[in-house]
Amino acid sequence: METSRLEAYWDAQEARWLEEWKAFLSIPSISADQAHLADCVRCAEWLVEHLQTLGFAAELRETATKPVVFARYDCPDPAAQTVLYYGHYDVQPPDPLEAWESPPFSPTLRDGRMIARGAQDNKGQTFYVLKALETLLKHGALRYNVRLLIEGEEETSSRAFADALPTWKADLKADVLMVCDTSSLSLDTPTVTMGLRGSLFVGIRLEGPSYDVHSGSFGGLIRNPAVEMAHLIATLHDSRGRIAVEGFVDDVAVPSEEDKEMARKAPYAWDDMSVRLGVALDGGEHGLPPAHRVGFRPTIEINGLLSGYTGPGVKTIIPSYATAKITSRLAAGQDPDRTLRCLLAHLHKHTPSSMRLHIEAQGIGGPALQLSVHEPWIQHAAHVLAPLAKREVAFAWEGGSIPIVGLLAKLSGATPILVGFGLEEDRIHSPNESFSIAQMRLGFLYATTFLSTAKP
Amino acid sequence: METSRLEAYWDAQEARWLEEWKAFLSIPSISADQAHLADCVRCAEWLVEHLQTLGFAAELRETATKPVVFARYDCPDPAAQTVLYYGHYDVQPPDPLEAWESPPFSPTLRDGRMIARGAQDNKGQTFYVLKALETLLKHGALRYNVRLLIEGEEETSSRAFADALPTWKADLKADVLMVCDTSSLSLDTPTVTMGLRGSLFVGIRLEGPSYDVHSGSFGGLIRNPAVEMAHLIATLHDSRGRIAVEGFVDDVAVPSEEDKEMARKAPYAWDDMSVRLGVALDGGEHGLPPAHRVGFRPTIEINGLLSGYTGPGVKTIIPSYATAKITSRLAAGQDPDRTLRCLLAHLHKHTPSSMRLHIEAQGIGGPALQLSVHEPWIQHAAHVLAPLAKREVAFAWEGGSIPIVGLLAKLSGATPILVGFGLEEDRIHSPNESFSIAQMRLGFLYATTFLSTAKP
Repeated sequence: METSRLEAYWDAQEARWLEEWKAFLSIPSISADQAHLADCVRCAEWLVEHLQTLGFAAELRETATKPVVFARYDCPDPAAQTVLYYGHYDVQPPDPLEAWESPPFSPTLRDGRMIARGAQDNKGQTFYVLKALETLLKHGALRYNVRLLIEGEEETSSRAFADALPTWKADLKADVLMVCDTSSLSLDTPTVTMGLRGSLFVGIRLEGPSYDVHSGSFGGLIRNPAVEMAHLIATLHDSRGRIAVEGFVDDVAVPSEEDKEMARKAPYAWDDMSVRLGVALDGGEHGLPPAHRVGFRPTIEINGLLSGYTGPGVKTIIPSYATAKITSRLAAGQDPDRTLRCLLAHLHKHTPSSMRLHIEAQGIGGPALQLSVHEPWIQHAAHVLAPLAKREVAFAWEGGSIPIVGLLAKLSGATPILVGFGLEEDRIHSPNESFSIAQMRLGFLYATTFLSTAKP
Repeated sequence: METSRLEAYWDAQEARWLEEWKAFLSIPSISADQAHLADCVRCAEWLVEHLQTLGFAAELRETATKPVVFARYDCPDPAAQTVLYYGHYDVQPPDPLEAWESPPFSPTLRDGRMIARGAQDNKGQTFYVLKALETLLKHGALRYNVRLLIEGEEETSSRAFADALPTWKADLKADVLMVCDTSSLSLDTPTVTMGLRGSLFVGIRLEGPSYDVHSGSFGGLIRNPAVEMAHLIATLHDSRGRIAVEGFVDDVAVPSEEDKEMARKAPYAWDDMSVRLGVALDGGEHGLPPAHRVGFRPTIEINGLLSGYTGPGVKTIIPSYATAKITSRLAAGQDPDRTLRCLLAHLHKHTPSSMRLHIEAQGIGGPALQLSVHEPWIQHAAHVLAPLAKREVAFAWEGGSIPIVGLLAKLSGATPILVGFGLEEDRIHSPNESFSIAQMRLGFLYATTFLSTAKP
């Protein structure tokens, strides 16, 4: 379909579509919190119904945890190729709630942006794909067979989804795996993502005295779990910001000169980012350029830390325990299982013998994903994208993870294409997540154009 | 009064007294939390009324924060010496609430113990002094002029109390400063406390990005405040458990050989303590005996630690900030102001230049207190105590602090006598704080006997 016609159609439908999008966003489908399991199911059911209305054969497929939305459309053209779209309907927890300017599950349109948890990640980006499919079906312009898999625990590792996938293999066969869960380098830079990092997580609890004790009576007698936790975390990195866990980085792949050069040249908006965050970009390994650190190197981050008394004023205790949530981003080459073993061994080794270390949770999101710019489907996506955005396309690496993409590509036999329209200002995973209507509309134009254009 | 008569009187009054004590304990006079200011005032008013009923001239005296209870009784005997009793009606916050077996401000009697926040520290120990005074006044057996000062912010540094004290100096003149806010080494060991540690506190907040950000997109780009906080805390001690803050321990006094020997010989119940706490006593400086570490050496403890996401499951963020509550116990010789300056300088020096360190709170509890076993009043207290407890008296050092005792001794010209009946099993400052009726009764016998016996 012509771009001008697509734009006119968007404009005509926008008011109705925004209301639908709000309904999707107002369901608190927080996968990390079991208390929201019913909301996750309700969200999946909403999607099934919505897809059926569009003309898809859609259904829920059960996993050991959250249901997956599966939908299919078969093109009249027997020569049509197949696109498998992968997205997720679950969202991150909204905490800290008090930092939100409007409630996270009461979507609010302000200054051209929709503010809500999931507004971008991934309900927003999935929604423009749904609206693209609606538009193309309505106009008889859909050139591909389409399969949709929209899962409910991307934010918590996709484990049950990964376990269930092989049993659905027959339904997954596709030529291209379309994912719209990534970002553009800036508003003006249409971006094809060339790599994602893998991830793993560990939750630890370091236990000391069996209850909080008086810090005067016992200070100097017993170890303090909060202090020992600090010492333990401090062993994870050396003074130059390098990961100091034995064996952890041994199998990190060295990027090709071509990839390093592409990353170096990509117009990342480092200065804007630094201003918006209010901090220098001096994290990670000293001496490496930012694109290299975020694209090709692993991390170990502390996502949460809790010990003792955190209320108002002073409370003179030695806490009974301290907890930390640790996640790691994995670089290409790292075997997640082996890397997790290295981290666990390190944590145990550096725990004082008189304390107890409990591993409260552990798991793997998936390995890193590394694509090639020479892949014809990727070149095709870039050719579709450039005229719509009226800018040169950047090929760039993203520091985030989409755990399941590697496995999905393998089972489906499809080539992943990661094109997304998120921006750093969307604040995904943070309070006041939002997505601009302008980016939403650009995503819609990309998805409609891609799905109505056969690869040359 | 004879011991057997005192015991009989206790037994006859016990039921009524326990009800009164419960009323005192049920007022949530938490000084650390401004939300409980009205409760603190209510608690002080309760004491004034109670003391008036006993026959004291009692009144509230205002400070910049919490009111102080002042009461006096003048003995008919013009040669009578004067006892100044110091106690506090404020209590520690009860958090974590879920760890209490019964609500902290619903005093519950179980297995011979009263369970409530403040049951021992210091409402319980103050209450047996009140009941001793009631008994002696009733029987015309009080041999001293008595002044009472019961303050409302001992748990938060006594600062406003300390500021107000000099203006009341004329009322404070006394021969002995009686304090019952310490512990016995064990159930079988009546104990005169020879020293207390001083204290200071600092609350810090280490700030990174202006909001929580995605740990994939930004991991390796920016510093993580939780990780940096861990590194900062880890600089406070070296690998041998010694304080590594420049200048911090320079002025710590070396104890006399006599004191070291007394501490070494005192029957501390280390093994019981270790079993009850479920940890080895391997904190503090390696290579020093426990009595030395807790009696003569300073500490730096983390009382609370908070950063990022601490709810269920995984949340992949780099937190915007991390906070820590730090308190230190000071040894004899340490000037609190100078020591606080050393700590603040260290914290600033070890904060990465690209991060912001906010000192959210800072303050001084007071210096350490060091008494002499050769002081006649202390010998007198020991002579009173031994036959009541039917055991040899131990002279021991306590690791805790009573911030104001040094200043009070100076202003009143009185000799401090620290005899208390707390036990480690009372869990002061912890969930399920309690005080045994047996120890309460022993405290009553000590206070009545002491106050009805002139010093030889």
